[in-house]
Amino acid sequence: MRDVAVIGVGMQKWGELWEQSTRDIFVESALLAMDDAGVDKLDAMYVGCMAPGLFAGQEHLGSVLADYLGQANIPGTRVESACASGGLAFRMAFMDVASGMNDIVLAGGIEKMTDISGGEATYALATAADMEWEGVSGVTFPGLYAMMAVAHMDKYGTTREQLASVAVKNHRNGMMNPRAQYQSEITVEGVINSVKVADPLNILDCSPITDGAAAVVIVPADRVKEFKKPGVKVIGTGHATDTIALHAREDLTTLAAVNASANRAYKMAGKEPKDIDFAEVHDCFTIAEIIVSESIGFFERGKGGPAVEAGETALEGRRPINPSGGLKSKGHPVGATGIAQIVEITEQLRGEAGKRQLKNARVGLAQNMGGSGGSSVVHILEAM
Amino acid sequence: MRDVAVIGVGMQKWGELWEQSTRDIFVESALLAMDDAGVDKLDAMYVGCMAPGLFAGQEHLGSVLADYLGQANIPGTRVESACASGGLAFRMAFMDVASGMNDIVLAGGIEKMTDISGGEATYALATAADMEWEGVSGVTFPGLYAMMAVAHMDKYGTTREQLASVAVKNHRNGMMNPRAQYQSEITVEGVINSVKVADPLNILDCSPITDGAAAVVIVPADRVKEFKKPGVKVIGTGHATDTIALHAREDLTTLAAVNASANRAYKMAGKEPKDIDFAEVHDCFTIAEIIVSESIGFFERGKGGPAVEAGETALEGRRPINPSGGLKSKGHPVGATGIAQIVEITEQLRGEAGKRQLKNARVGLAQNMGGSGGSSVVHILEAM
Repeated sequence: MRDVAVIGVGMQKWGELWEQSTRDIFVESALLAMDDAGVDKLDAMYVGCMAPGLFAGQEHLGSVLADYLGQANIPGTRVESACASGGLAFRMAFMDVASGMNDIVLAGGIEKMTDISGGEATYALATAADMEWEGVSGVTFPGLYAMMAVAHMDKYGTTREQLASVAVKNHRNGMMNPRAQYQSEITVEGVINSVKVADPLNILDCSPITDGAAAVVIVPADRVKEFKKPGVKVIGTGHATDTIALHAREDLTTLAAVNASANRAYKMAGKEPKDIDFAEVHDCFTIAEIIVSESIGFFERGKGGPAVEAGETALEGRRPINPSGGLKSKGHPVGATGIAQIVEITEQLRGEAGKRQLKNARVGLAQNMGGSGGSSVVHILEAM
Repeated sequence: MRDVAVIGVGMQKWGELWEQSTRDIFVESALLAMDDAGVDKLDAMYVGCMAPGLFAGQEHLGSVLADYLGQANIPGTRVESACASGGLAFRMAFMDVASGMNDIVLAGGIEKMTDISGGEATYALATAADMEWEGVSGVTFPGLYAMMAVAHMDKYGTTREQLASVAVKNHRNGMMNPRAQYQSEITVEGVINSVKVADPLNILDCSPITDGAAAVVIVPADRVKEFKKPGVKVIGTGHATDTIALHAREDLTTLAAVNASANRAYKMAGKEPKDIDFAEVHDCFTIAEIIVSESIGFFERGKGGPAVEAGETALEGRRPINPSGGLKSKGHPVGATGIAQIVEITEQLRGEAGKRQLKNARVGLAQNMGGSGGSSVVHILEAM
């Protein structure tokens, strides 16, 4: 396999983008990435998108988006793994370049979520759960993650305040990210007193409904010098599935797919958790960040809650997590999230992260989750 | 890149499978393929499926299907390119093995289309067209292909009888395929007198709504001897997009994405059209097979109609096309179609095609189309 590097990233400000359709949003971010890389012609393109049929009445995005990006004729592939669709698009693009098939490949993610009602959006998202078992009983994602939160609190003594600390920390980071949907400070007390969604999770424990896209351009690592910016090398990729329904799992306090995908990426990269300077992880709900921080080996099992409360995962902490603001503050257009993680890691490793720039960041990890952990994709990137 | 070979294929009888859900149908075909290969553990899995959210209320099939196949933990990836989703899943699986990432990889396709009404199914399929331009004006796929048929008839003198000859030939082949949805003979007169759908296309010019799945197992070519059956080598892959909306194309009588994808596959395989012994192509409508037979270089432009009428594409003809019965007779569960083409080619190259076995078949080509040609995927396979 050939070595692969990121040479361009792009992402517009996320939010409720009423004036733009799926294709407009995608093209805006893709052109930013191509401009950042200094390329105007692609060899191939991968798009992560969860449910454009349900959200926007349009499938066949590989063709639609290649066409509207002015690249009709190239191979355009859409991949889906629920909210891990973006991470998976990046993995497929990596495989394409690594195999020697193509050289200049764009990996993008997109979701336009606000053109349908909140109820319809909740249904669309629920199709990432097991609809024959979980869906028919009426449970949706806040309920599934609430069950995981209750189990984690029961087994390890994780507290309500520790859950809230995840959201507070991510909003603090997001205030320094000009592309984040919510650039506002929140407090532990505010999270605990916000509207109940599914006990113990309140509205401020949940990532929002968002319109947005993100894109990156990758090339063979030995061609990096031909482009405008410093390259960032992709040194590990890992992907795993788990039983899709929670009732089939032995343990609700860990995420087997996250653990397996991280271990595969660590093995490929020749790294251990201690070698990773920071991570972007899938904080769709506050409990998710805590469990993921344990499942990727940043903290021992049961120690994720105390770690975030003690500031260890803050920008200035020992183990920074979600410097971008995470899904909670930056927003969560589901198909785009995994690519936005790669955008953040690339900018941090290039030293372009502005006010939220980490010191001495050399190696970053991205973890992108599908559903309640039915799938997970992990990538490890290193400054060149 | 490593050489890659097919070592197992599986497919159940297609039709209206009322007793089975998406996951049941997929698992049945996948287990047949794994049994054919003699493997019980996969390294990774790819699934082509067009619109499971709209057809069956279930996304995240990479996880659902890996789980129900007893393979939870492996990387499970769903890809979509409308009706070319199956061919694209095969291409991604090929890239995975060719890159050296994984060894024993399953590529499957699935669509469960009959759990919703005919009107809802027509809408779901229409999301493969340009919904912002074509969809809003009320046109669906029979209408789009009818426009292509009218243009082809006008420019080249293609006749109503020639269109009908495609359906008649494919039903004749399908009568010898025990897994085909419609195993019945039809006549040119019967096609011409069948119910009008979108002038000049009648109901017997159109492929049906079908439930079904298909699966194949691929491995590095140098490991073929470890498995039960002879391997079939994948010697070329090509993928291309085109403008998704018909109004943006310069010429409605050819399919640019089909032409580009075929040329890429020919180049990689080191073959020309004359070197191909037979093809499985995307006859979603009779006109599609005629245009595709020209766009892949089997016949000169405008000669596809006379060729089918003269029997050149029949089983015993000079250029056999769709020995399986094609989409018309075998059925068209959209995500599964591209994989079923690989199943047919593999069985023909192994000499396992029963009554429809071609003589001296050494090299076969599969062409799988998305929408009205917004995407196309071509593979070339050779007996080992």
